[in-house]
Amino acid sequence: MSMNLTQKIIAAHLVSGEMALGAEIGLRIDQTLTQDATGTMAYLQFEAMGVDRVRTDLSVSYVDHNTLQMGFRNPDDHRFLRTVAARHGVIFSPPGTGICHQLHLENFALPGATLVGSDSHTPTAGGIGSLAMGAGGLSVALAMAGEPYFISMPRVVKVRLEGRLTGWASAKDVILHLLGLLTVKGGVGKVFEFAGPGVATLSVPERAVITNMGAELGATASLFPSDERTRAFLASMDREGDWKPLAADADAAYDDEIVIDLSALVPLVAQPHMPDRVVPVAELAGLSVDQVAIGSCTNSSYADMRMVAEVLRGKLVNVGTDTMVSPGSKQVLKMLAAEGLVEPLLDAGVRILECSCGPCIGMGGSPVSGGVSVRTFNRNFEGRSGTKDARVYLVSPLTAAMAALHGQFTDPATWGTPPAQPELPAKAPSIRHLFAFPPEDGSGVEVLRGPNIVALEQFTPMDDTVTAPVVIKLGDDITTDHIMPAGAEITSLRSNVPAIAQHVFGRVDADFVARARAAGIGVIVAGDNYGQGSSREHAALAPRHLGIRAVIVRSLARIHRANLVNFGILPLILCDRADYDKLTVGGAVTIPASAITAGGEVDVQVEGAGAIRVRNDLTQKELDIIRAGGLLNHVRLSRKQ
Amino acid sequence: MSMNLTQKIIAAHLVSGEMALGAEIGLRIDQTLTQDATGTMAYLQFEAMGVDRVRTDLSVSYVDHNTLQMGFRNPDDHRFLRTVAARHGVIFSPPGTGICHQLHLENFALPGATLVGSDSHTPTAGGIGSLAMGAGGLSVALAMAGEPYFISMPRVVKVRLEGRLTGWASAKDVILHLLGLLTVKGGVGKVFEFAGPGVATLSVPERAVITNMGAELGATASLFPSDERTRAFLASMDREGDWKPLAADADAAYDDEIVIDLSALVPLVAQPHMPDRVVPVAELAGLSVDQVAIGSCTNSSYADMRMVAEVLRGKLVNVGTDTMVSPGSKQVLKMLAAEGLVEPLLDAGVRILECSCGPCIGMGGSPVSGGVSVRTFNRNFEGRSGTKDARVYLVSPLTAAMAALHGQFTDPATWGTPPAQPELPAKAPSIRHLFAFPPEDGSGVEVLRGPNIVALEQFTPMDDTVTAPVVIKLGDDITTDHIMPAGAEITSLRSNVPAIAQHVFGRVDADFVARARAAGIGVIVAGDNYGQGSSREHAALAPRHLGIRAVIVRSLARIHRANLVNFGILPLILCDRADYDKLTVGGAVTIPASAITAGGEVDVQVEGAGAIRVRNDLTQKELDIIRAGGLLNHVRLSRKQ
Repeated sequence: MSMNLTQKIIAAHLVSGEMALGAEIGLRIDQTLTQDATGTMAYLQFEAMGVDRVRTDLSVSYVDHNTLQMGFRNPDDHRFLRTVAARHGVIFSPPGTGICHQLHLENFALPGATLVGSDSHTPTAGGIGSLAMGAGGLSVALAMAGEPYFISMPRVVKVRLEGRLTGWASAKDVILHLLGLLTVKGGVGKVFEFAGPGVATLSVPERAVITNMGAELGATASLFPSDERTRAFLASMDREGDWKPLAADADAAYDDEIVIDLSALVPLVAQPHMPDRVVPVAELAGLSVDQVAIGSCTNSSYADMRMVAEVLRGKLVNVGTDTMVSPGSKQVLKMLAAEGLVEPLLDAGVRILECSCGPCIGMGGSPVSGGVSVRTFNRNFEGRSGTKDARVYLVSPLTAAMAALHGQFTDPATWGTPPAQPELPAKAPSIRHLFAFPPEDGSGVEVLRGPNIVALEQFTPMDDTVTAPVVIKLGDDITTDHIMPAGAEITSLRSNVPAIAQHVFGRVDADFVARARAAGIGVIVAGDNYGQGSSREHAALAPRHLGIRAVIVRSLARIHRANLVNFGILPLILCDRADYDKLTVGGAVTIPASAITAGGEVDVQVEGAGAIRVRNDLTQKELDIIRAGGLLNHVRLSRKQ
Repeated sequence: MSMNLTQKIIAAHLVSGEMALGAEIGLRIDQTLTQDATGTMAYLQFEAMGVDRVRTDLSVSYVDHNTLQMGFRNPDDHRFLRTVAARHGVIFSPPGTGICHQLHLENFALPGATLVGSDSHTPTAGGIGSLAMGAGGLSVALAMAGEPYFISMPRVVKVRLEGRLTGWASAKDVILHLLGLLTVKGGVGKVFEFAGPGVATLSVPERAVITNMGAELGATASLFPSDERTRAFLASMDREGDWKPLAADADAAYDDEIVIDLSALVPLVAQPHMPDRVVPVAELAGLSVDQVAIGSCTNSSYADMRMVAEVLRGKLVNVGTDTMVSPGSKQVLKMLAAEGLVEPLLDAGVRILECSCGPCIGMGGSPVSGGVSVRTFNRNFEGRSGTKDARVYLVSPLTAAMAALHGQFTDPATWGTPPAQPELPAKAPSIRHLFAFPPEDGSGVEVLRGPNIVALEQFTPMDDTVTAPVVIKLGDDITTDHIMPAGAEITSLRSNVPAIAQHVFGRVDADFVARARAAGIGVIVAGDNYGQGSSREHAALAPRHLGIRAVIVRSLARIHRANLVNFGILPLILCDRADYDKLTVGGAVTIPASAITAGGEVDVQVEGAGAIRVRNDLTQKELDIIRAGGLLNHVRLSRKQ
């Protein structure tokens, strides 16, 4: 039977279930990655499982989020991550080495492999032909323990690329175009598989820009074939031996198809405050720009940085436009240095920040009050920049560089000739020696902790009947940034759930925590696409700590749904969307939890409004996990049996 | 009459008073500098004076402290500083361009000029022969307005340097040696003037290391002659025209003399938590090191960075030793890049941070809990690193690099051959175009503010009799870091006194603010050397906001004393040191403020303990300022008359 590429990789890793659309499938996971903001919890969970050494082919612990180290918490986390990695057979990437997805692509990602990472942009590795998925830390911990990773068999969408990019259009504009077309809800339950003659015109780093931001579509993964461009990339990374060709069968069937003519694309921009609010850059000509930030796991490759340096060479950025660049890895920075491209950036007035996520996650680099910030990043959610009233626009590095020079958006038609898309050198300089590879036997390694690394809380099993007030009622497209804000101060508490829980919904409802604590137990109500964005499991774990037992929503984002299950929170979906109006803050709901069946419906009693019907899309196993009070309890129960 | 160099520069700038030891003298100020953490307040104060354009030869506003930009406050401050500079004729140095003292030395400092800066390490420019002094922001604002700067005629100490540095000893070890000899109180009221045959063996950047850390001695300034080494430095900076020879007369008299044999010095280290706790590095051999941080206004020159790169080239820092480097300026980084020295640093596992103060002021880079941090900085006060229980050791860049490689202190006798002290190139690359030079006419420039930039509070004049409780009682060597802590979160409030006041004494007494607010008016009691360290005037301004009207101490540091005067707080000194024991928290004291005379004594009634005698060393003018409720009130009054 002919198969598309997604089916081929899934088939090669299938350990349970059938490849029927929507069916639960269990996949053998070849590789895992974590970053520090989600990783400390993942390794605490891995430790709780009692497995001595990771059972994957390769697991890497990157430190790229909390690299500023404001106070002891972050460096303590880094030390914990370094020692726990050595103890259990995980490769450790120290702070400042680079951004996890950029480093993984350069050093470890494999065509045809499965990768689960505790970061929502893990699908970046799809650019090299890896089936790479974002997940909560607990799911990654399970994968490290050798357990399968469970997903619903996705809808595979063929994205047929035709033509080639011209002028100032770049890979970023391909994915911005898709976002404009499909919206941030458009990829839920889907894998976007890229095919067609346009694929060969894109290098692996360009492909990775596209797969990276598939996360903003809500996609499970995005995937490019592995071809001669892939071989050239791997050869440049001194890993040609890791290459193998991979492609869909010529007559493969897909669940859906989209065609994009690359040659018709123009520079695009996603306007505040959602990555799908896409318009041509030309439409914003004249809008003054206070800040430009170039980097992030989306756009920090050597090619991106080099093109920016070429655009800025011999020029000076606008004095009122604070312009900063964060190279994606020390490899990228070494290449820039070797080619004399650091000086033109400095001479243009650019600030070169450390190789890390930096301003993309609000870790410094906040814009001025009410400012316009133009960023090559992947998310422009309100407040994520650290400045609540800033307006963040997402663009390509080329568009960002032009905005920095002019201090405003201008019409690309006036930009003249673009720099050439640079080729990678035949052999890029290696930074492999900067990773701390674990010893063969890590049993003697002492795992060092700090006072902010708090042992895991054990949650109670679900009661037969849950009666709890609605403690917050939210609208559509609530992101995990809304639920569990980032930024240096709050993110430094990721290893300390009682402390970080104090900040849940802090940017949307300052009274939420007090109300939830007073209630002791509660229910969250929301509209569509609840929990989109980052994979942070703290957006489920911290609410659970505050007593949340269920969310009642119109629809849910994939990773957050999985995180709710993992921490024993019922994800309930309104059968009648209009019933949303019957739920009010403070009103009690009574959920007959023991009567819930996998995929079934039940009536929930709403104080003062009678019964409303809710459904769930849980598998029996997921329901069992929730009943047990979360996945760690469930694993403990399974081991006892 | 023959004069020493200090006398010559003072004589050339004297506008009032006589050069008699201890007499108040007024100096014409040629140049000023501010940094962002003290600068916003300085420019708000300058604005309040109603002067249109600065009346100095040159004034520069540097942004080097709050460069991380966690939230809107810092970027709003930067925007305010940029626009207020353009408005009033001040040169603006954008964030990331470098550290004020390094940049000033490279670009603007002049032999023989007077410089006042709102940063305690302003004396760095003494390395080029500038009489450079740290001051509170208000004093700098006054100097910008063309007013003289008042000091007591200092005791001039000749430091005769003999021989030359050998082996691994470096300029840092010269000043550490002096600190060990004289202690952090040893320089109060003094200018250290360097002379002797050893001077010619030191380059300007080496001299600047020594003058920089004269601040830790409590000195008013430190001063080197301007000689052929100075000419060579200025020529390398493309400013040979700024050079002029300057030296003490051969038979000049000094108030005191110290002799240092450079050739006898060995690598030294200042142990926690004071820069004068100096021992040879060899004595600490075997002590494990968790972090190494290289940079700061003390040790971030091209020569420092180059020697570090040479030591680390082809090697890898210890995996458990988090090693970070902050070059002092973009010029330094450009030189490193041009000479291929960025790659060896990256390959050694070093983190290259932005060109800014960074970890030195706790702006990121905090050590692990209880960790040992080895730093090339100038201060190791408890908690300043951002990690309260960290132990910070101050060393030279060479010692720091060796600690990074070994992961512990080792005996310098085992280090082999040191790298050569590099010469500056005949012509270093310029970054002068990165400064924003003000327009000839700035009257049309709009000064942009933000919600955190709060207008100045107008304080009330001193009451005739002040009755107030002692709200805190402190020991010796209390630093301005104890009084008004730094770190990103708190420092971001520097433009907002009511908000930052919430953190006064926050790290030594969590209840202080509540107690002071409850009391409404209060007195601070402390031991010796109260207010040493940073020049931050918030250490006076914020207590004044909380109602502090007097400090009663055994002795005071110079800059803080001036800041107390500037904000209308009485600095009273115990005549009998033993009376310290009679003062208790909560007990009321009654100060006959109207009876105080300049330099005189009065009795203060202490509740339950009778009268104690206090004196002051105020001039009549200073007393008038305090009576008016601070310097801004005093200036307003003077203008009315």
